[in-house]
Amino acid sequence: MDSVLQIQLELAKKASRTMLKISTEQKNQALTSISYALKKHVDEIIAANQIDIDNAKANGMSSAMVDRLLLTQQRIENIAEDVLKLTTLSDPVGQVIREIHRPNGLLIKQVRVPIGVFGIIYESRPNVTVDIACLCIKSGNVCVLKGGKEALCSNQILTRIMQEATRHILPVGTITLIENTDRSMVSQLITANEYVDVVVPRGGKGLIEHVIHNATVPVIETGAGNCHLYIDKDANMHKAIAISVNAKIQRPSVCNAIETILVHKDIAKEYLVAMVKAFDGKVEIRGDERVCGMISCQKATQEDYATEYDDYIVAVKIVDSIDEVIDHIYKYSTKHSECIVTENQEAATLFLNSLDSACVYHNASTRFSDGGEFGFGAELGISTQKLHARGPLALLEMTSFQYRIYGQGQIRE
Amino acid sequence: MDSVLQIQLELAKKASRTMLKISTEQKNQALTSISYALKKHVDEIIAANQIDIDNAKANGMSSAMVDRLLLTQQRIENIAEDVLKLTTLSDPVGQVIREIHRPNGLLIKQVRVPIGVFGIIYESRPNVTVDIACLCIKSGNVCVLKGGKEALCSNQILTRIMQEATRHILPVGTITLIENTDRSMVSQLITANEYVDVVVPRGGKGLIEHVIHNATVPVIETGAGNCHLYIDKDANMHKAIAISVNAKIQRPSVCNAIETILVHKDIAKEYLVAMVKAFDGKVEIRGDERVCGMISCQKATQEDYATEYDDYIVAVKIVDSIDEVIDHIYKYSTKHSECIVTENQEAATLFLNSLDSACVYHNASTRFSDGGEFGFGAELGISTQKLHARGPLALLEMTSFQYRIYGQGQIRE
Repeated sequence: MDSVLQIQLELAKKASRTMLKISTEQKNQALTSISYALKKHVDEIIAANQIDIDNAKANGMSSAMVDRLLLTQQRIENIAEDVLKLTTLSDPVGQVIREIHRPNGLLIKQVRVPIGVFGIIYESRPNVTVDIACLCIKSGNVCVLKGGKEALCSNQILTRIMQEATRHILPVGTITLIENTDRSMVSQLITANEYVDVVVPRGGKGLIEHVIHNATVPVIETGAGNCHLYIDKDANMHKAIAISVNAKIQRPSVCNAIETILVHKDIAKEYLVAMVKAFDGKVEIRGDERVCGMISCQKATQEDYATEYDDYIVAVKIVDSIDEVIDHIYKYSTKHSECIVTENQEAATLFLNSLDSACVYHNASTRFSDGGEFGFGAELGISTQKLHARGPLALLEMTSFQYRIYGQGQIRE
Repeated sequence: MDSVLQIQLELAKKASRTMLKISTEQKNQALTSISYALKKHVDEIIAANQIDIDNAKANGMSSAMVDRLLLTQQRIENIAEDVLKLTTLSDPVGQVIREIHRPNGLLIKQVRVPIGVFGIIYESRPNVTVDIACLCIKSGNVCVLKGGKEALCSNQILTRIMQEATRHILPVGTITLIENTDRSMVSQLITANEYVDVVVPRGGKGLIEHVIHNATVPVIETGAGNCHLYIDKDANMHKAIAISVNAKIQRPSVCNAIETILVHKDIAKEYLVAMVKAFDGKVEIRGDERVCGMISCQKATQEDYATEYDDYIVAVKIVDSIDEVIDHIYKYSTKHSECIVTENQEAATLFLNSLDSACVYHNASTRFSDGGEFGFGAELGISTQKLHARGPLALLEMTSFQYRIYGQGQIRE
């Protein structure tokens, strides 16, 4: 292992032991201090960020990507405000999940504890550096961050400001940035089982696949969202159109936006005409043969159904039955969020109870799949796996638990 | 992928969809039917088992291992009784974990659902075949079993009896046995992300390490138990000795037995003399230098502290402080179960709150780390990882959850 990384991981692991004893007050004090420091050092952050921006432009990065990298005074103030909001959320650590009194007198308490060391691998957005570090602090965890190399200067200054701001409150090693940009750092981090308790990849499909296939540390997958909207034959047309527009184009680049619309044949013509009108030319429509016979559109391929566009594009397919809908979703979904629009309670129940996606909706936009919208506060991402965390990966899901057993000398018969 | 395995996994995945709709009554009916069939076919089971036993003896298997493989009428009846007991446990599927009413009128229900397809890799004991299949049925999951090749004939007959007994109740593919003994089957199973939702290795360290390092499917680790007992200076000597004997020799071969005893220097002489007397020559003691100065024993090495003996051997070390105890446990523990014996509440709290093992005990034997002893009913194993399941991996931990969101046309602002 790289010798600097080795030292960083040893410190992180040691810090995770100390974090078990840090109180809610100390954690909130650390967050307040970080929020204040970010605002105080706004000029230095912008200056460091400017180096990343200049490099990115020199390397021909697209303007959309440069915008993701950019930190302005307003953006930094927003980040600082979000950090402060974390102090208002309840601390999951120490919560008693179950308390079991056994006939032999044993008292068993199942208590929430931090997971320990989070290894997070992410791409260009430097605000993620602050978000993750602060969610980890609030949940009693420590983080080892591996951000994108395009954002290195920004991440360095942000990390240093957070470390300095919490120096007298939290243990050394609570927030660690891997500054070495060598690609092998990721491989080393995701196989460091002795030091790292969980790895969360935040980014594109390539990054997530790489981590899943190479990690020996447990992984929480986030983010892949090939989400579906089904317009049932008993749909209320007003709701159907409002949800279609909201779920597709309110913010197409996010994982909880829809990518495919399935519509029942009995309502297809009416819906499609209204949909085209509502999308107002903003969305490229790729339809199956029957759709192309009703409205003007591109022809959809199998590949389209499997694609998370994250863009102003939608695949549309006409279906004959709800069973066909369920089969289609099983085949193509990334198991993030799916919605049925219908006034038929039986159809809704069948849809919700048959699918194994993290979030299933009846008559509401998939855009609500979000920690904030669920009332959980901030989130690290949306988990699409079935173990441990599913849906919003918020503070509660950033904890583990421990059984504490209190006896008076009991032995097993 | 092996073409037979491919077909088996496709059927298993399909069955997992149907299992979402199987009622508690149907599951209990299936379990009752299996229990009855096992008793009815006891002669055929014994005959098939005899082939495995004969092969094992011909291959020079140790008598202890042959005993693990052996199925007698009594053992089969016990297995059948255990299956029947599962019908009395409450069904975790469908339980509502949280119900959230949002200000915008959305109702969010977090509901327990099956995980889906379990891939289980285990070694020689054929009773595990029935245990796992029936736990999976009760929790709404399907299983793909890869047992040890020494038990193949036993596993084949047990699987067929269970399949036949549930043929009219559960979907085809609910219980699957991989009968191909080629070693590559394990590698194929643990990388079949499209079909398998979770892999649980049950067996020795070698098997578990192999699975962790090669699986791309999420893994739940079970079983490694290098457990510690700390006798504090304020220990009640009667409790200390009773727990020492119980935790070490009531059943030394299991994962919740202790392997190392740490004793405070102020109480060491008194405790060690009493311990030697209580162990009555049955346990080989490997002590550090100070221990060897007080009682007759072997010299312990660093290797001893790291070893899960699963045998009548114990490492003993004298410590100067509780901090030294905590450091030792962090260094050597597999994070399964640890116990402090003390009448000092402050010491107990420090011990319990500082360690990150799955089960931490104050004045009770680590032998209680068991699903049955915790009141959870049967278990698939004891998880030593921090994600998803920790401690007893019982029915509750064999489920995932799903968010079901009920709206009236809500869209995100």
